[in-house]
Amino acid sequence: MNFRSDNEAPVNDQIMQALVEANQGFEESYGYDRFSVQFKSQCEALFECWVEALPLTTGTAANSIAMALACPPYGAIYCHEGAHINADECGAPEMFTGGAKLIPIQGDHGKICIHALTEKLAHSGVHGEHEVMPAVISLTQCTEAGTVYSLEELKALKALKEQYGLALHMDGARFANALVSLGCSPAELTWQTGVDMLSFGATKNGAMMAESLLLFNPKYKNQILRQRKRSGHLISKMRYVSSQLCAYLTGGLWLSLAQHANQQAQTFFQACQNQVEFIHPVEANEVFCRLSVDKIAALKQEGFEFHVWPGSQDIIRLVFSHATTADSVKQLIQAIKE
Amino acid sequence: MNFRSDNEAPVNDQIMQALVEANQGFEESYGYDRFSVQFKSQCEALFECWVEALPLTTGTAANSIAMALACPPYGAIYCHEGAHINADECGAPEMFTGGAKLIPIQGDHGKICIHALTEKLAHSGVHGEHEVMPAVISLTQCTEAGTVYSLEELKALKALKEQYGLALHMDGARFANALVSLGCSPAELTWQTGVDMLSFGATKNGAMMAESLLLFNPKYKNQILRQRKRSGHLISKMRYVSSQLCAYLTGGLWLSLAQHANQQAQTFFQACQNQVEFIHPVEANEVFCRLSVDKIAALKQEGFEFHVWPGSQDIIRLVFSHATTADSVKQLIQAIKE
Amino acid sequence: MNFRSDNEAPVNDQIMQALVEANQGFEESYGYDRFSVQFKSQCEALFECWVEALPLTTGTAANSIAMALACPPYGAIYCHEGAHINADECGAPEMFTGGAKLIPIQGDHGKICIHALTEKLAHSGVHGEHEVMPAVISLTQCTEAGTVYSLEELKALKALKEQYGLALHMDGARFANALVSLGCSPAELTWQTGVDMLSFGATKNGAMMAESLLLFNPKYKNQILRQRKRSGHLISKMRYVSSQLCAYLTGGLWLSLAQHANQQAQTFFQACQNQVEFIHPVEANEVFCRLSVDKIAALKQEGFEFHVWPGSQDIIRLVFSHATTADSVKQLIQAIKE
Amino acid sequence: MNFRSDNEAPVNDQIMQALVEANQGFEESYGYDRFSVQFKSQCEALFECWVEALPLTTGTAANSIAMALACPPYGAIYCHEGAHINADECGAPEMFTGGAKLIPIQGDHGKICIHALTEKLAHSGVHGEHEVMPAVISLTQCTEAGTVYSLEELKALKALKEQYGLALHMDGARFANALVSLGCSPAELTWQTGVDMLSFGATKNGAMMAESLLLFNPKYKNQILRQRKRSGHLISKMRYVSSQLCAYLTGGLWLSLAQHANQQAQTFFQACQNQVEFIHPVEANEVFCRLSVDKIAALKQEGFEFHVWPGSQDIIRLVFSHATTADSVKQLIQAIKE
Repeated sequence: MNFRSDNEAPVNDQIMQALVEANQGFEESYGYDRFSVQFKSQCEALFECWVEALPLTTGTAANSIAMALACPPYGAIYCHEGAHINADECGAPEMFTGGAKLIPIQGDHGKICIHALTEKLAHSGVHGEHEVMPAVISLTQCTEAGTVYSLEELKALKALKEQYGLALHMDGARFANALVSLGCSPAELTWQTGVDMLSFGATKNGAMMAESLLLFNPKYKNQILRQRKRSGHLISKMRYVSSQLCAYLTGGLWLSLAQHANQQAQTFFQACQNQVEFIHPVEANEVFCRLSVDKIAALKQEGFEFHVWPGSQDIIRLVFSHATTADSVKQLIQAIKE
Repeated sequence: MNFRSDNEAPVNDQIMQALVEANQGFEESYGYDRFSVQFKSQCEALFECWVEALPLTTGTAANSIAMALACPPYGAIYCHEGAHINADECGAPEMFTGGAKLIPIQGDHGKICIHALTEKLAHSGVHGEHEVMPAVISLTQCTEAGTVYSLEELKALKALKEQYGLALHMDGARFANALVSLGCSPAELTWQTGVDMLSFGATKNGAMMAESLLLFNPKYKNQILRQRKRSGHLISKMRYVSSQLCAYLTGGLWLSLAQHANQQAQTFFQACQNQVEFIHPVEANEVFCRLSVDKIAALKQEGFEFHVWPGSQDIIRLVFSHATTADSVKQLIQAIKE
Repeated sequence: MNFRSDNEAPVNDQIMQALVEANQGFEESYGYDRFSVQFKSQCEALFECWVEALPLTTGTAANSIAMALACPPYGAIYCHEGAHINADECGAPEMFTGGAKLIPIQGDHGKICIHALTEKLAHSGVHGEHEVMPAVISLTQCTEAGTVYSLEELKALKALKEQYGLALHMDGARFANALVSLGCSPAELTWQTGVDMLSFGATKNGAMMAESLLLFNPKYKNQILRQRKRSGHLISKMRYVSSQLCAYLTGGLWLSLAQHANQQAQTFFQACQNQVEFIHPVEANEVFCRLSVDKIAALKQEGFEFHVWPGSQDIIRLVFSHATTADSVKQLIQAIKE
Repeated sequence: MNFRSDNEAPVNDQIMQALVEANQGFEESYGYDRFSVQFKSQCEALFECWVEALPLTTGTAANSIAMALACPPYGAIYCHEGAHINADECGAPEMFTGGAKLIPIQGDHGKICIHALTEKLAHSGVHGEHEVMPAVISLTQCTEAGTVYSLEELKALKALKEQYGLALHMDGARFANALVSLGCSPAELTWQTGVDMLSFGATKNGAMMAESLLLFNPKYKNQILRQRKRSGHLISKMRYVSSQLCAYLTGGLWLSLAQHANQQAQTFFQACQNQVEFIHPVEANEVFCRLSVDKIAALKQEGFEFHVWPGSQDIIRLVFSHATTADSVKQLIQAIKE
């Protein structure tokens, strides 16, 4: 039973079906297909505003193109020290921006500490041109720790963004999980709290390889198509990316898949919270908890698959996905309680 | 009837079926799936040598990562002036290499003129460190003009490559079409004629989004995985790229699809060669010919879709793909002959 | 007797004296010294307009920062194929811009052929985002062939610049030589003919290491200080650069030095034009002429130093500098006539 | 009286005299002058080993070229969070490397905490290709806090460097001050404690604009000349950089200048240590101490010039240079004691 990653889960059947249906005859290439047009419309309806929607195949591409749009090569990007863009993208933001600097900010449970960021920004500029120029705040929602920024926390970031004239980027590789966790609208979670750019992921939540970069602020849209092309991310047969995204959003599929995943995580948490130390609040579909080394070994032997968190020996990460069955969660709970 | 681009053709049924079959349960992500392993094995069997095989989703990514592996930021890449890497990738090779310089070489019918290249290389180095350093020769096979380098022509490039200690890269977006056109083995067309790196395309010839970079020379493999990751080209659910590639190579599917496409182009050429001026020799699946402006308008009105070549008014490009039916070719011939 | 390069000439005495005089006590660093302020004022007086003046130590830095200011990483820079930025800067413009593409344009005598450029621009954009975006025209004045664009030729470039919304950059490593050759005003030769940015050289014409980038168009000044700093070109003890520049401009020194250099070249040309084939018109201080291989050897043996032009065997370049004496020119003429 | 920066001090007379003497007649350009040859020889004699010596005009260039030589674009550079390369070069190392990542390490008094670095390196690699690759440790000697790493501390860094196969770089903008502080030999302070590359500064200690990059390990010398050229740092009239460096090293001038500067700082420290809080140990020529806001204002009014440290209100930095007179130090001491 696989709790290792939502990237290891299969494609949702409705999305696979959409791919099969998109495979009829010839269709314009390089993003001029009808699915790409439809996806933009669906986004605008969902987010209740103008949206520039750029279909992509990886979250790293979405994040990095966002950085290239908003951050000059002599700019600074403020993010949590454990943010995917800082810790897991092998320098992609640096590559796409031509050498911008990521400023790692500390904070509990995967969230940027607002006080640490405030202080960092307050000290920026004292060395003038000898320093990089503050340009972007990037946050991950849900965070890499499986937690979710509240709307209040986002508004505090928005205030800083406005004070310093920065762009606000949200890495939403698991945006759907955050949205259903908070129970707010997509608009409330994004542009209404100051988000200019959203890396809007679908792959982890049921698509095959379908991500996108959504812009809510036209200020950052300059040459977005050339930025995609020059990084090799313009897919020729784009209909097969965009049709995934369309199916993902149709009929609320994305929300029900995320709801299911989050629910499995909650079931696990509720059942085990008295026996197990949870490292971070369980607010979406990722769970970090501490088990004995012996217990970890036993679980692995029983066929449960998960990551022991890099750098630790007794902290495991469990990811509950759209494809995680209630039965497998039940078995996991039992195995842990034994 | 679509003769505009093989990028507008649908996915071949066997490849689509392979995707459906790959969609069973959980599978390791980020390239550690069994299809990626299988693809490497298939490549090694086909090319009869050690191969480093890097599955990717675009040809621009394959080309650009190849350049990053073999060309330092102060290096020079020699290619035809009309090469895809020079004319159609919006500076991607420059981005991936950190600023290398592409040196455009002239030549008829899309092929690098060996004399022009010889002269260019003979003059390189006269300004010492003030000049970029020769590093790579990149050729496209089939060329952007639909022609195919003979093995003899490739050997002349190989000799230059060896004389100057360069890497030899082949952009094989339509490699299968070249291979069946020449009737030689994959090994003969690549490493046996000095090719160190092949951008091995499948998308145009029937896949959905599946390309790969194949290395035959271990000298260039340094940090190939990090190069893929930092450019955002590491697909998380990699099984859905690699399973396409496996199906593409299984049972000679790739060759029969290319054979079909080339055959349609030949049929057209044979039927029309006396009435129409062909701009380049017809050696694979792309055809460039001159028609009157009136004829072009008439064909468009009858529902034939194709590109009037950018920069001209009376030269059209016709692409015959794996999905082009013999019947549609027949109709096109009739329409042109009328 | 050295006719090899104006880079091998010594520093003019007045400039050396200025350095000695600047060496009094402490002075603010990093460009906030009084000489840097004075240099800007002198430029504004000379060019009769607002000027952003950035003191630098190399022409490559001036050119490359100019490119970084006006050309995005997905942009195109149009220049003569033999332009210093294309042929002699080892990819510096590509480095500073983050990967822009230089489009080499042909043309006689080192000048961009206006027809070739017009055609190239007319065809730009046909591939949309697949192509780099036209951004800059860069010309060298005097050219690398020792010729000088007339004001009419410059106006033709200005018209193209305006038609396509490009920046116009002038590499003026030998700007003074061009100016005295044309006998026009600095304003006429620059912003009045559409020049947005001038790499304004002083080193070749008598300074020690003092170049500058002058902006006439505020549109391109964004973050010019950070561009200088991040490329390592912010000199800490800047007074020693700026005081050279101030002395260079004071009392018309720069013009008299260039006048002298040009005059020596003319004297040589007038004396030898009937015996020797001159490759390019002699319009400033560089001369290219063809001599027999035996003659070249004889001259070298007699102690005349010059470059046989790279790629040729019988074309030599003679550079006449501010430090070239009339006597040495006389001896060279005699030696050639023997 | 200026205690603001050694960058505001004038040029030492012997060095200015060397410039005047170098200004005789013509001399080969672009680094092929006799002073550049002599400087390499002097370095090899002083450091008692093979040295590649690259004359430059800024420390940022020296540091950044060093990074480009040893760190790939997907690499990591470990340095103190306050290191010049991280905090004061506006992203130059990122630019020169094509996007490498600087990993800031904490530590008291400007020194990398060996435990923090050990832990950071121990955790590197756990995310495989998703992470940047450890490549360089860069330390500043003297540090930005005016302290000096002991040979024992350097050996601990050397052990880590060897364990992880990294390059060890020393930013020696004030190398002479560190050397005389420790009283060891140049060899002991560099390659004998594992230093592969030294940014060897002269400007702050009496030169006009003369820095250099010294390589002790031939492994990192690949294409060092092209790295200098492509960043615009190849000075055409190089004799005027190299002759400064030669004079700097001749007759122990560099050591006596540093000795003087350090001595002034010690005099100040000895006299004031009982009245004033010193933030960092005083080991070279920079002093950080806390004064009351009123005292600071009073000193400024009396004509003492110094920096209130950015981010603080009551910490000042005093820099004692080769040009700081004993008398001015005496006056400063008196003013503080009043």
